Amino acid sequence: MRGALYVIGLGPGPADWLTPQASAALAGIEDLVGYGPYVARVAPRAGVQPQASDNRVEFERAGAALALAAQGRRVGVVSGGDPGVFAMAAAVVEAMAQGPAEWRALDVEVLPGVSAMQAAAARLGAPLGGDFCALSLSDNLKPWSLIERRLIAACDGDFALALYNPASKARPQQIHDAFAVLRARRAPSTPVAFARAVGRPDEALVVTTLGEADPGIADMSTLVIVGASTTRLVQRPGLRPFLLTPRSYP
Amino acid sequence: MRGALYVIGLGPGPADWLTPQASAALAGIEDLVGYGPYVARVAPRAGVQPQASDNRVEFERAGAALALAAQGRRVGVVSGGDPGVFAMAAAVVEAMAQGPAEWRALDVEVLPGVSAMQAAAARLGAPLGGDFCALSLSDNLKPWSLIERRLIAACDGDFALALYNPASKARPQQIHDAFAVLRARRAPSTPVAFARAVGRPDEALVVTTLGEADPGIADMSTLVIVGASTTRLVQRPGLRPFLLTPRSYP
Repeated sequence: MRGALYVIGLGPGPADWLTPQASAALAGIEDLVGYGPYVARVAPRAGVQPQASDNRVEFERAGAALALAAQGRRVGVVSGGDPGVFAMAAAVVEAMAQGPAEWRALDVEVLPGVSAMQAAAARLGAPLGGDFCALSLSDNLKPWSLIERRLIAACDGDFALALYNPASKARPQQIHDAFAVLRARRAPSTPVAFARAVGRPDEALVVTTLGEADPGIADMSTLVIVGASTTRLVQRPGLRPFLLTPRSYP
Repeated sequence: MRGALYVIGLGPGPADWLTPQASAALAGIEDLVGYGPYVARVAPRAGVQPQASDNRVEFERAGAALALAAQGRRVGVVSGGDPGVFAMAAAVVEAMAQGPAEWRALDVEVLPGVSAMQAAAARLGAPLGGDFCALSLSDNLKPWSLIERRLIAACDGDFALALYNPASKARPQQIHDAFAVLRARRAPSTPVAFARAVGRPDEALVVTTLGEADPGIADMSTLVIVGASTTRLVQRPGLRPFLLTPRSYP
Protein backbone atom coordinates (compact mmCIF):
# COMPACT_ATOMS: atom_id res chain seq x y z
CA MET A 1 0.00 0.00 0.00
CA ARG A 2 1.23 3.45 -0.96
CA GLY A 3 1.67 5.95 1.83
CA ALA A 4 0.66 9.58 1.73
CA LEU A 5 1.44 12.71 3.65
CA TYR A 6 -1.04 15.53 4.17
CA VAL A 7 0.18 18.85 5.55
CA ILE A 8 -3.04 19.98 7.16
CA GLY A 9 -3.92 23.57 8.04
CA LEU A 10 -5.99 23.66 11.22
CA GLY A 11 -6.73 27.38 10.91
CA PRO A 12 -6.56 29.66 13.96
CA GLY A 13 -8.47 27.31 16.27
CA PRO A 14 -12.26 27.20 16.10
CA ALA A 15 -13.91 24.34 14.21
CA ASP A 16 -15.94 26.75 12.08
CA TRP A 17 -12.71 27.96 10.44
CA LEU A 18 -11.50 24.42 9.67
CA THR A 19 -12.06 23.58 5.99
CA PRO A 20 -14.06 20.46 5.08
CA GLN A 21 -10.96 19.29 3.19
CA ALA A 22 -8.89 19.43 6.37
CA SER A 23 -11.64 17.68 8.36
CA ALA A 24 -11.82 14.88 5.79
CA ALA A 25 -8.05 14.45 5.82
CA LEU A 26 -8.01 14.25 9.63
CA ALA A 27 -10.65 11.52 9.40
CA GLY A 28 -8.52 9.44 7.04
CA ILE A 29 -5.03 9.49 8.55
CA GLU A 30 -3.27 6.80 10.56
CA ASP A 31 -0.57 9.00 12.11
CA LEU A 32 -0.97 12.51 13.48
CA VAL A 33 2.27 14.46 13.66
CA GLY A 34 2.78 18.01 14.89
CA TYR A 35 3.67 20.55 17.51
CA GLY A 36 2.02 19.53 20.80
CA PRO A 37 -0.68 22.22 21.05
CA TYR A 38 -1.81 21.60 17.45
CA VAL A 39 -1.93 17.82 17.92
CA ALA A 40 -3.99 18.46 21.08
CA ARG A 41 -6.58 20.35 19.01
CA VAL A 42 -7.45 17.24 17.01
CA ALA A 43 -10.07 14.97 18.60
CA PRO A 44 -8.51 11.57 19.42
CA ARG A 45 -9.62 8.75 17.13
CA ALA A 46 -9.15 5.00 17.58
CA GLY A 47 -6.23 3.71 15.57
CA VAL A 48 -4.56 7.10 15.16
CA GLN A 49 -1.13 7.42 16.67
CA PRO A 50 -0.49 10.98 17.86
CA GLN A 51 3.13 12.12 17.78
CA ALA A 52 3.47 15.49 19.43
CA SER A 53 6.79 17.29 19.35
CA ASP A 54 8.37 20.54 20.43
CA ASN A 55 8.11 23.87 18.63
CA ARG A 56 11.74 24.09 17.59
CA VAL A 57 12.07 20.75 15.79
CA GLU A 58 10.05 21.38 12.65
CA PHE A 59 12.58 19.85 10.30
CA GLU A 60 13.04 16.68 12.36
CA ARG A 61 9.26 16.36 12.70
CA ALA A 62 8.87 16.66 8.92
CA GLY A 63 11.47 13.95 8.36
CA ALA A 64 9.81 11.62 10.86
CA ALA A 65 6.46 12.14 9.09
CA LEU A 66 7.98 11.46 5.65
CA ALA A 67 9.65 8.30 6.95
CA LEU A 68 6.28 7.03 8.17
CA ALA A 69 4.67 7.81 4.79
CA ALA A 70 7.52 5.99 3.04
CA GLN A 71 6.57 2.92 5.12
CA GLY A 72 3.13 3.06 3.52
CA ARG A 73 1.29 4.95 6.26
CA ARG A 74 -1.25 7.74 5.76
CA VAL A 75 0.26 10.58 7.75
CA GLY A 76 -1.16 13.96 8.72
CA VAL A 77 1.23 16.76 9.70
CA VAL A 78 -0.85 19.43 11.40
CA SER A 79 -0.10 23.14 11.44
CA GLY A 80 -1.93 26.00 13.03
CA GLY A 81 -3.29 28.50 10.51
CA ASP A 82 -2.18 27.83 6.94
CA PRO A 83 0.74 25.38 6.61
CA GLY A 84 2.03 27.48 3.70
CA VAL A 85 2.49 30.63 5.83
CA PHE A 86 5.37 30.41 8.35
CA ALA A 87 4.43 26.81 9.10
CA MET A 88 5.01 23.16 8.28
CA ALA A 89 4.77 23.10 4.45
CA ALA A 90 8.26 24.58 4.06
CA ALA A 91 9.74 22.15 6.60
CA VAL A 92 8.17 19.17 4.81
CA VAL A 93 9.29 20.25 1.34
CA GLU A 94 12.79 21.01 2.62
CA ALA A 95 13.00 17.58 4.26
CA MET A 96 11.83 16.04 0.96
CA ALA A 97 14.61 17.90 -0.86
CA GLN A 98 17.32 16.74 1.55
CA GLY A 99 16.05 13.24 2.32
CA PRO A 100 16.21 9.94 0.43
CA ALA A 101 14.95 9.88 -3.19
CA GLU A 102 11.88 7.84 -2.22
CA TRP A 103 10.57 10.79 -0.17
CA ARG A 104 10.35 12.88 -3.34
CA ALA A 105 8.16 10.21 -4.97
CA LEU A 106 5.59 10.23 -2.15
CA ASP A 107 2.09 11.62 -2.42
CA VAL A 108 2.47 14.86 -0.51
CA GLU A 109 -0.45 17.26 -0.41
CA VAL A 110 -0.69 20.63 1.33
CA LEU A 111 -4.18 21.55 2.58
CA PRO A 112 -4.51 25.31 3.06
CA GLY A 113 -6.14 26.95 6.05
CA VAL A 114 -7.11 30.34 7.40
CA SER A 115 -3.91 32.03 8.56
CA ALA A 116 -3.60 34.22 11.67
CA MET A 117 -3.38 37.42 9.62
CA GLN A 118 -6.68 36.63 7.92
CA ALA A 119 -8.46 35.90 11.18
CA ALA A 120 -7.06 39.12 12.66
CA ALA A 121 -7.96 41.12 9.56
CA ALA A 122 -11.51 39.77 9.60
CA ARG A 123 -12.03 40.95 13.19
CA LEU A 124 -10.47 44.33 12.40
CA GLY A 125 -12.46 45.22 9.27
CA ALA A 126 -10.08 45.59 6.33
CA PRO A 127 -6.54 46.37 7.54
CA LEU A 128 -4.96 44.31 4.74
CA GLY A 129 -7.31 45.53 2.01
CA GLY A 130 -4.45 46.84 -0.12
CA ASP A 131 -0.96 45.53 -0.84
CA PHE A 132 0.77 44.06 2.20
CA CYS A 133 3.79 42.12 3.45
CA ALA A 134 3.76 39.11 5.74
CA LEU A 135 6.93 39.02 7.79
CA SER A 136 8.09 36.83 10.67
CA LEU A 137 10.07 38.67 13.34
CA SER A 138 11.70 35.52 14.65
CA ASP A 139 15.45 35.50 14.22
CA ASN A 140 15.72 31.81 15.03
CA LEU A 141 16.02 30.97 11.32
CA LYS A 142 17.29 34.20 9.76
CA PRO A 143 19.51 37.07 10.90
CA TRP A 144 18.01 40.20 12.42
CA SER A 145 19.80 42.25 9.73
CA LEU A 146 17.54 40.64 7.11
CA ILE A 147 14.41 41.30 9.16
CA GLU A 148 15.45 44.94 9.51
CA ARG A 149 16.16 45.18 5.77
CA ARG A 150 12.69 43.79 5.06
CA LEU A 151 10.99 46.19 7.47
CA ILE A 152 12.75 49.10 5.76
CA ALA A 153 11.81 47.80 2.31
CA ALA A 154 8.18 47.40 3.40
CA CYS A 155 8.21 51.05 4.50
CA ASP A 156 9.86 52.13 1.25
CA GLY A 157 7.02 50.41 -0.62
CA ASP A 158 4.34 51.74 1.75
CA PHE A 159 3.00 48.23 2.31
CA ALA A 160 0.72 47.38 5.23
CA LEU A 161 2.42 44.79 7.44
CA ALA A 162 1.33 41.54 9.05
CA LEU A 163 3.98 40.63 11.62
CA TYR A 164 4.13 36.98 12.70
CA ASN A 165 6.07 35.66 15.73
CA PRO A 166 6.52 39.16 17.14
CA ALA A 167 7.90 37.97 20.48
CA SER A 168 8.36 34.97 22.73
CA LYS A 169 9.72 34.50 26.22
CA ALA A 170 13.12 33.76 24.72
CA ARG A 171 12.87 36.67 22.25
CA PRO A 172 11.23 39.66 23.97
CA GLN A 173 13.30 42.27 22.11
CA GLN A 174 12.49 41.92 18.37
CA ILE A 175 9.10 43.61 18.45
CA HIS A 176 10.62 46.62 20.23
CA ASP A 177 13.43 46.82 17.67
CA ALA A 178 10.93 46.43 14.84
CA PHE A 179 8.78 49.26 16.19
CA ALA A 180 11.88 51.47 16.40
CA VAL A 181 12.50 50.85 12.68
CA LEU A 182 8.85 51.52 11.83
CA ARG A 183 8.52 54.62 14.05
CA ALA A 184 11.46 56.21 12.26
CA ARG A 185 9.65 55.78 8.95
CA ARG A 186 5.88 55.91 9.48
CA ALA A 187 3.61 58.57 11.01
CA PRO A 188 2.75 58.23 14.72
CA SER A 189 -0.91 58.24 13.69
CA THR A 190 -0.49 55.02 11.65
CA PRO A 191 -3.10 52.51 12.89
CA VAL A 192 -1.69 49.44 14.61
CA ALA A 193 -3.46 46.36 15.95
CA PHE A 194 -2.37 43.56 18.26
CA ALA A 195 -4.54 40.52 17.62
CA ARG A 196 -3.99 37.77 20.15
CA ALA A 197 -5.34 34.22 19.82
CA VAL A 198 -8.12 35.27 17.44
CA GLY A 199 -10.93 32.71 17.47
CA ARG A 200 -9.81 31.09 20.71
CA PRO A 201 -11.26 31.61 24.21
CA ASP A 202 -8.45 33.98 25.17
CA GLU A 203 -8.87 36.23 22.11
CA ALA A 204 -7.79 39.81 22.76
CA LEU A 205 -7.69 42.71 20.32
CA VAL A 206 -5.99 46.05 20.87
CA VAL A 207 -6.40 48.82 18.30
CA THR A 208 -4.00 51.72 18.71
CA THR A 209 -1.49 53.79 16.76
CA LEU A 210 2.18 53.43 16.01
CA GLY A 211 2.91 56.40 18.26
CA GLU A 212 0.94 55.13 21.24
CA ALA A 213 1.38 51.37 20.94
CA ASP A 214 3.12 49.36 23.67
CA PRO A 215 4.90 46.67 21.65
CA GLY A 216 5.57 44.82 24.90
CA ILE A 217 2.01 43.46 24.90
CA ALA A 218 2.81 41.17 21.94
CA ASP A 219 3.53 37.52 22.70
CA MET A 220 3.89 34.25 20.80
CA SER A 221 0.13 34.10 20.13
CA THR A 222 -0.10 37.66 18.80
CA LEU A 223 -0.32 38.80 15.18
CA VAL A 224 0.61 42.47 14.81
CA ILE A 225 -0.78 44.58 11.98
CA VAL A 226 0.79 47.91 11.08
CA GLY A 227 -1.01 50.11 8.59
CA ALA A 228 0.30 51.76 5.42
CA SER A 229 0.11 55.54 4.89
CA THR A 230 -3.47 55.17 3.63
CA THR A 231 -4.72 53.01 6.53
CA ARG A 232 -7.19 54.75 8.80
CA LEU A 233 -9.55 54.04 11.67
CA VAL A 234 -13.28 53.96 11.06
CA GLN A 235 -15.07 54.75 14.32
CA ARG A 236 -18.16 52.71 15.19
CA PRO A 237 -20.44 53.81 18.03
CA GLY A 238 -20.09 51.47 21.00
CA LEU A 239 -17.90 49.09 19.01
CA ARG A 240 -14.17 48.66 18.41
CA PRO A 241 -13.12 50.83 15.48
CA PHE A 242 -12.40 49.12 12.17
CA LEU A 243 -9.09 49.51 10.38
CA LEU A 244 -9.36 50.31 6.70
CA THR A 245 -6.62 50.09 4.11
CA PRO A 246 -8.50 51.13 0.98
CA ARG A 247 -7.71 49.41 -2.29
CA SER A 248 -7.46 52.81 -3.95
CA TYR A 249 -4.55 55.19 -3.57
CA PRO A 250 -4.80 58.96 -3.69
CA MET B 1 -35.48 43.63 13.83
CA ARG B 2 -31.80 44.48 13.61
CA GLY B 3 -30.10 43.88 10.30
CA ALA B 4 -26.67 42.43 9.81
CA LEU B 5 -24.10 42.26 7.07
CA TYR B 6 -21.71 39.34 6.57
CA VAL B 7 -18.81 39.72 4.18
CA ILE B 8 -18.39 36.08 3.25
CA GLY B 9 -15.24 34.54 1.82
CA LEU B 10 -16.15 31.77 -0.62
CA GLY B 11 -12.56 30.61 -1.04
CA PRO B 12 -11.15 29.74 -4.46
CA GLY B 13 -14.15 27.68 -5.56
CA PRO B 14 -14.51 24.10 -4.36
CA ALA B 15 -16.88 23.38 -1.49
CA ASP B 16 -14.17 21.58 0.46
CA TRP B 17 -12.34 24.90 0.86
CA LEU B 18 -15.44 26.74 2.11
CA THR B 19 -15.31 27.19 5.89
CA PRO B 20 -18.21 25.91 8.01
CA GLN B 21 -18.60 29.50 9.23
CA ALA B 22 -19.16 30.74 5.67
CA SER B 23 -21.59 27.87 4.95
CA ALA B 24 -23.59 28.69 8.06
CA ALA B 25 -23.73 32.37 7.13
CA LEU B 26 -24.92 31.54 3.62
CA ALA B 27 -27.70 29.44 5.17
CA GLY B 28 -28.92 32.35 7.30
CA ILE B 29 -28.99 35.34 4.95
CA GLU B 30 -31.99 36.95 3.24
CA ASP B 31 -30.06 38.85 0.58
CA LEU B 32 -27.09 37.65 -1.43
CA VAL B 33 -25.01 40.46 -2.93
CA GLY B 34 -21.88 40.13 -5.05
CA TYR B 35 -20.07 40.03 -8.34
CA GLY B 36 -22.05 37.81 -10.72
CA PRO B 37 -19.73 34.77 -10.89
CA TYR B 38 -19.45 34.63 -7.08
CA VAL B 39 -23.24 34.93 -6.59
CA ALA B 40 -23.60 32.12 -9.14
CA ARG B 41 -21.43 29.84 -6.97
CA VAL B 42 -23.96 29.91 -4.14
CA ALA B 43 -26.77 27.34 -4.39
CA PRO B 44 -30.15 29.12 -4.77
CA ARG B 45 -32.33 28.99 -1.68
CA ALA B 46 -36.02 29.86 -1.33
CA GLY B 47 -36.49 33.35 0.10
CA VAL B 48 -33.01 34.57 -0.77
CA GLN B 49 -32.85 37.45 -3.16
CA PRO B 50 -29.66 37.27 -5.28
CA GLN B 51 -28.28 40.62 -6.43
CA ALA B 52 -25.46 40.10 -8.88
CA SER B 53 -23.44 43.06 -10.08
CA ASP B 54 -20.49 43.87 -12.29
CA ASN B 55 -16.84 43.57 -11.32
CA ARG B 56 -16.08 47.28 -11.37
CA VAL B 57 -18.79 48.50 -8.99
CA GLU B 58 -17.52 47.20 -5.67
CA PHE B 59 -18.14 50.40 -3.77
CA GLU B 60 -21.71 50.81 -5.07
CA ARG B 61 -22.38 47.14 -4.31
CA ALA B 62 -21.13 47.61 -0.75
CA GLY B 63 -23.38 50.64 -0.27
CA ALA B 64 -26.42 48.78 -1.60
CA ALA B 65 -25.71 45.90 0.79
CA LEU B 66 -25.33 48.26 3.78
CA ALA B 67 -28.57 50.01 2.86
CA LEU B 68 -30.37 46.65 2.91
CA ALA B 69 -28.87 45.79 6.31
CA ALA B 70 -29.94 49.21 7.61
CA GLN B 71 -33.52 48.24 6.67
CA GLY B 72 -33.23 45.29 9.04
CA ARG B 73 -32.28 42.60 6.50
CA ARG B 74 -29.65 39.90 6.98
CA VAL B 75 -27.33 40.46 4.06
CA GLY B 76 -24.45 38.40 2.72
CA VAL B 77 -21.83 40.05 0.51
CA VAL B 78 -19.87 37.27 -1.15
CA SER B 79 -16.26 37.47 -2.26
CA GLY B 80 -14.06 34.92 -3.96
CA GLY B 81 -11.11 33.86 -1.81
CA ASP B 82 -10.72 35.87 1.38
CA PRO B 83 -12.76 39.10 1.50
CA GLY B 84 -9.87 40.74 3.37
CA VAL B 85 -7.38 40.23 0.53
CA PHE B 86 -8.04 42.41 -2.54
CA ALA B 87 -11.75 41.85 -2.15
CA MET B 88 -14.99 43.14 -0.66
CA ALA B 89 -14.07 43.81 3.00
CA ALA B 90 -12.27 47.05 2.09
CA ALA B 91 -15.17 48.23 -0.10
CA VAL B 92 -17.69 47.56 2.69
CA VAL B 93 -15.64 49.30 5.38
CA GLU B 94 -14.98 52.24 3.08
CA ALA B 95 -18.70 52.55 2.30
CA MET B 96 -19.40 52.42 6.05
CA ALA B 97 -16.91 55.26 6.59
CA GLN B 98 -18.46 57.46 3.91
CA GLY B 99 -22.12 56.56 4.35
CA PRO B 100 -24.79 57.62 6.86
CA ALA B 101 -23.99 57.25 10.59
CA GLU B 102 -26.44 54.36 10.97
CA TRP B 103 -24.25 52.21 8.70
CA ARG B 104 -21.41 52.45 11.24
CA ALA B 105 -23.72 51.10 13.95
CA LEU B 106 -24.66 47.97 11.99
CA ASP B 107 -23.52 44.46 12.84
CA VAL B 108 -20.87 43.93 10.18
CA GLU B 109 -18.80 40.76 10.29
CA VAL B 110 -16.05 39.64 7.93
CA LEU B 111 -15.76 35.86 7.47
CA PRO B 112 -12.30 34.90 6.22
CA GLY B 113 -11.64 32.39 3.47
CA VAL B 114 -8.80 30.66 1.66
CA SER B 115 -7.25 33.23 -0.67
CA ALA B 116 -5.93 32.48 -4.17
CA MET B 117 -2.29 32.72 -3.06
CA GLN B 118 -2.86 30.06 -0.42
CA ALA B 119 -4.56 27.67 -2.83
CA ALA B 120 -1.75 28.22 -5.33
CA ALA B 121 0.93 27.82 -2.66
CA ALA B 122 -0.67 24.57 -1.45
CA ARG B 123 -0.50 23.06 -4.95
CA LEU B 124 3.07 24.27 -5.42
CA GLY B 125 4.60 22.98 -2.17
CA ALA B 126 5.92 25.91 -0.14
CA PRO B 127 6.61 28.91 -2.40
CA LEU B 128 5.50 31.38 0.30
CA GLY B 129 7.20 29.59 3.17
CA GLY B 130 9.26 32.65 4.10
CA ASP B 131 8.44 36.36 4.17
CA PHE B 132 6.36 37.52 1.22
CA CYS B 133 4.40 40.41 -0.28
CA ALA B 134 0.90 40.25 -1.72
CA LEU B 135 0.52 42.85 -4.45
CA SER B 136 -2.25 43.59 -6.93
CA LEU B 137 -1.03 44.60 -10.38
CA SER B 138 -4.30 46.30 -11.30
CA ASP B 139 -3.91 50.02 -11.88
CA ASN B 140 -7.66 50.63 -11.84
CA LEU B 141 -7.46 51.89 -8.25
CA LYS B 142 -3.85 53.03 -7.88
CA PRO B 143 -1.22 54.48 -10.20
CA TRP B 144 1.28 52.24 -11.97
CA SER B 145 4.09 54.30 -10.41
CA LEU B 146 3.06 52.98 -6.98
CA ILE B 147 2.93 49.38 -8.22
CA GLU B 148 6.41 49.79 -9.70
CA ARG B 149 7.66 51.31 -6.44
CA ARG B 150 6.27 48.35 -4.53
CA LEU B 151 7.80 45.79 -6.90
CA ILE B 152 11.19 47.49 -6.45
CA ALA B 153 10.77 47.58 -2.66
CA ALA B 154 9.83 43.88 -2.64
CA CYS B 155 13.04 43.14 -4.54
CA ASP B 156 15.08 45.35 -2.18
CA GLY B 157 13.70 43.31 0.70
CA ASP B 158 14.14 39.97 -1.11
CA PHE B 159 10.51 39.05 -0.44
CA ALA B 160 8.76 36.29 -2.38
CA LEU B 161 5.81 37.77 -4.29
CA ALA B 162 2.17 36.79 -4.75
CA LEU B 163 0.84 38.88 -7.64
CA TYR B 164 -2.95 39.28 -7.83
CA ASN B 165 -4.86 40.61 -10.84
CA PRO B 166 -1.83 40.23 -13.12
CA ALA B 167 -3.76 40.93 -16.32
CA SER B 168 -7.19 41.26 -17.84
CA LYS B 169 -8.48 41.82 -21.37
CA ALA B 170 -8.53 45.56 -20.67
CA ARG B 171 -5.10 45.48 -18.98
CA PRO B 172 -2.81 43.08 -20.85
CA GLN B 173 0.36 45.12 -20.27
CA GLN B 174 0.94 45.29 -16.49
CA ILE B 175 2.29 41.77 -16.08
CA HIS B 176 4.84 42.39 -18.86
CA ASP B 177 5.90 45.67 -17.23
CA ALA B 178 6.09 43.97 -13.82
CA PHE B 179 8.29 41.19 -15.20
CA ALA B 180 10.59 43.80 -16.73
CA VAL B 181 11.02 45.37 -13.27
CA LEU B 182 11.62 41.97 -11.68
CA ARG B 183 13.99 40.70 -14.39
CA ALA B 184 16.20 43.72 -13.87
CA ARG B 185 16.54 42.81 -10.19
CA ARG B 186 16.24 39.04 -9.73
CA ALA B 187 18.22 36.14 -11.18
CA PRO B 188 16.85 34.49 -14.34
CA SER B 189 16.85 31.20 -12.42
CA THR B 190 14.31 32.53 -9.87
CA PRO B 191 11.38 30.09 -9.73
CA VAL B 192 8.08 31.47 -11.01
CA ALA B 193 4.64 29.89 -11.07
CA PHE B 194 1.42 30.78 -12.86
CA ALA B 195 -1.50 29.28 -10.97
CA ARG B 196 -4.77 29.60 -12.83
CA ALA B 197 -8.20 28.88 -11.34
CA VAL B 198 -6.79 26.62 -8.62
CA GLY B 199 -9.47 24.28 -7.30
CA ARG B 200 -11.80 24.82 -10.24
CA PRO B 201 -12.33 22.53 -13.25
CA ASP B 202 -10.10 24.68 -15.45
CA GLU B 203 -7.16 24.67 -13.01
CA ALA B 204 -3.80 25.04 -14.76
CA LEU B 205 -0.36 25.30 -13.18
CA VAL B 206 2.84 26.34 -14.92
CA VAL B 207 6.16 26.16 -13.07
CA THR B 208 9.01 27.97 -14.77
CA THR B 209 11.72 30.54 -14.09
CA LEU B 210 11.85 34.30 -14.27
CA GLY B 211 14.16 34.06 -17.28
CA GLU B 212 12.01 31.63 -19.25
CA ALA B 213 8.51 32.66 -18.20
CA ASP B 214 5.99 33.97 -20.73
CA PRO B 215 4.08 36.54 -18.67
CA GLY B 216 1.49 36.68 -21.46
CA ILE B 217 -0.10 33.45 -20.20
CA ALA B 218 -1.45 35.24 -17.10
CA ASP B 219 -5.10 36.27 -17.14
CA MET B 220 -7.73 37.52 -14.67
CA SER B 221 -7.97 34.09 -13.04
CA THR B 222 -4.23 33.68 -12.56
CA LEU B 223 -2.20 34.16 -9.41
CA VAL B 224 1.50 34.62 -10.16
CA ILE B 225 4.16 33.65 -7.63
CA VAL B 226 7.72 34.91 -7.99
CA GLY B 227 10.36 33.46 -5.72
CA ALA B 228 12.89 35.22 -3.49
CA SER B 229 16.64 34.62 -3.82
CA THR B 230 16.34 31.54 -1.60
CA THR B 231 13.42 29.96 -3.49
CA ARG B 232 14.30 26.80 -5.37
CA LEU B 233 12.67 23.96 -7.26
CA VAL B 234 12.47 20.52 -5.68
CA GLN B 235 12.24 17.93 -8.45
CA ARG B 236 9.81 15.03 -7.97
CA PRO B 237 9.95 12.02 -10.29
CA GLY B 238 6.93 11.99 -12.61
CA LEU B 239 5.34 14.91 -10.76
CA ARG B 240 5.37 18.69 -11.09
CA PRO B 241 8.31 20.08 -9.12
CA PHE B 242 7.58 21.79 -5.83
CA LEU B 243 8.69 25.34 -5.12
CA LEU B 244 10.41 25.85 -1.78
CA THR B 245 11.09 29.11 -0.03
CA PRO B 246 12.77 27.90 3.15
CA ARG B 247 12.04 29.69 6.39
CA SER B 248 15.77 29.83 7.08
CA TYR B 249 18.17 32.20 5.38
CA PRO B 250 21.84 31.44 4.70
